[in-house]
Amino acid sequence: MSQPEYELFYWPGFPGRGEFIRLLFEEADVPYSDIAKTPDKAMPTVMGLISTENLGDDHNPPPLAPPMLKHGDLVIHQLPNILLYLAPKLGLAPKEGDAVYHLNQISLTMLDGFLIEIHETHHPIAISLYYEDQKEEAKRRSKYFIKDRLPKYFGYMQRVLEAKTSGQGPWLYGDSLTYVDLVLFQCVDGTAFAFPKSVQALEQSGKYDDVFKLYAEVKARPNIAKYLASDRRQAYGNGIWRRYPELEED
Amino acid sequence: MSQPEYELFYWPGFPGRGEFIRLLFEEADVPYSDIAKTPDKAMPTVMGLISTENLGDDHNPPPLAPPMLKHGDLVIHQLPNILLYLAPKLGLAPKEGDAVYHLNQISLTMLDGFLIEIHETHHPIAISLYYEDQKEEAKRRSKYFIKDRLPKYFGYMQRVLEAKTSGQGPWLYGDSLTYVDLVLFQCVDGTAFAFPKSVQALEQSGKYDDVFKLYAEVKARPNIAKYLASDRRQAYGNGIWRRYPELEED
Repeated sequence: MSQPEYELFYWPGFPGRGEFIRLLFEEADVPYSDIAKTPDKAMPTVMGLISTENLGDDHNPPPLAPPMLKHGDLVIHQLPNILLYLAPKLGLAPKEGDAVYHLNQISLTMLDGFLIEIHETHHPIAISLYYEDQKEEAKRRSKYFIKDRLPKYFGYMQRVLEAKTSGQGPWLYGDSLTYVDLVLFQCVDGTAFAFPKSVQALEQSGKYDDVFKLYAEVKARPNIAKYLASDRRQAYGNGIWRRYPELEED
Repeated sequence: MSQPEYELFYWPGFPGRGEFIRLLFEEADVPYSDIAKTPDKAMPTVMGLISTENLGDDHNPPPLAPPMLKHGDLVIHQLPNILLYLAPKLGLAPKEGDAVYHLNQISLTMLDGFLIEIHETHHPIAISLYYEDQKEEAKRRSKYFIKDRLPKYFGYMQRVLEAKTSGQGPWLYGDSLTYVDLVLFQCVDGTAFAFPKSVQALEQSGKYDDVFKLYAEVKARPNIAKYLASDRRQAYGNGIWRRYPELEED
C-alpha cells in the first residue's frame, strides 16, 4: 500500500484538535496517515517537530504546536489554517471567492473562540499547572462559561443557521455540507461530553434546534457514522474536553 | 471627497484588535473609514452590527464581534480572517501559494495565541466581570504568563526569524515586509505597554534580538512612524492591553 498523500501529526491518546482534521478526511473518504495511531512513535515525533531546536526547513517555518499537516513539501500548523488549506482540496469548501472568508470566520469563531474557552474552563490559570492546582479557579470560570458563554456560542451558531446565507438544508453556509459543519459537530460533541447537563439544558430550551439538528445530520452521514463506530475514533478523557462533574455543579 | 473603499468597524476609545487592521492600511497608504473616529456613532453602530437581532443579509452571515470589515458587498469579521483577506489586496502578502498558509499560521499564533492570553491575564475568570472582581486570579495567571508564556511566544517569533524561510532582511517571512511583521510589531508594542518590566527583561536577555530588531524596523517605516505620531493612533488604556502594575510584581 502506498503512503497517503496527507500526513497528520498530533498527540496520541485523546481526540483534541487533531479530531477536526480527521473528520474532514473521513467525510471526504480521503486516505491520511495519523501518527497518533502509533502512540510509541507519536510522542517523540511530535515533540521533535515542536522542539525549540526545530527551525523548520528551506520551505517551511517552524511550527509552535500540534496539529501539524504535511502535504508534499508543505508543513503547516494552526488548526484553522490547516482546515482552510485542506477543505477546498477535499471538496468541503469553495476554492475562491467570498465564501472562503465567510467559512473561515465561522471556523475561527468556533475554534479560536469557543474551543479555547472550553480548555480554559479546566485550566484558567496556567497550562503548566495540573487541574488540581487550579480547581477553585476552574469552578469559578466554569460557572460563568455555562451561564454566559455557552448560550453566546450556541446562539451565534443558531443565528448563522437562521441567516439567509445558510441556504437550503441544515448547513451553516450555502446549500451543501462544508467543513464548518464538521467543526460545529465536533464542538458540540466535545462540549456535550465535558458539560453533559448544560448541553442537555440548551437542547431542552428549544432555542437552538437548528444547531442540534445539524449536529444529528452530521453524525448520521454515512462516512462519519462509520468513522465514529470505528476504533479510529478515540475516546474522550484528556486534552481539551474533560469531564469534571464538579465544574458543572450549581 | 469620495467614501473610502474599505470600512472598519471597531469599538472607540482604545487600540484593541482594530489596531492591527489600521496598521495594514497605514503601511500600504490606502484610505479607509474608521467608525472609531466618531465615538458617538461608533458605539450604536457596532452594537447594532453584533446584536443578536442581526441575521446578516443576503450575502453575509452575521458577525459575532468586532472588528468587522466592509468592502463593497462583503462584510467579514474575525481579526485573522480580515488580515488574510486584506493583506494580498494591500500588497502585504502573496495572493496565492504556500506562503498564504505560512503567513496565516504565524498570524494565528500571534493573534489567537499570544493576544488572547494577554487578555486573559486581566480577565481569567469572565469577561462579564470587572477586573477588580477577578484580581487575585489575574495576579496568579499573570505570574505564569510572565514566567512561561511570554518567553514561549518571544522564543517562537525569534525562531521564525532565525529560520531559512525568513529570507534576507529583518522580516518574518521572505525577503520583504508582510502583514505578519505588522502583527508582531503591535503584539510587542501592546505587551510592552501592559508588562513593561517583563518586556524590558526579555530585551535585556539578548535571546530575542531579532524580534526587537524587527519591532524597531517596523516602527521606523515612514508610513508607520507618521501614523504613530498622528492623532489617529489611539492611546492604550482599556481593552486588551492594560497596565495594572500589581500584575507584574514578583
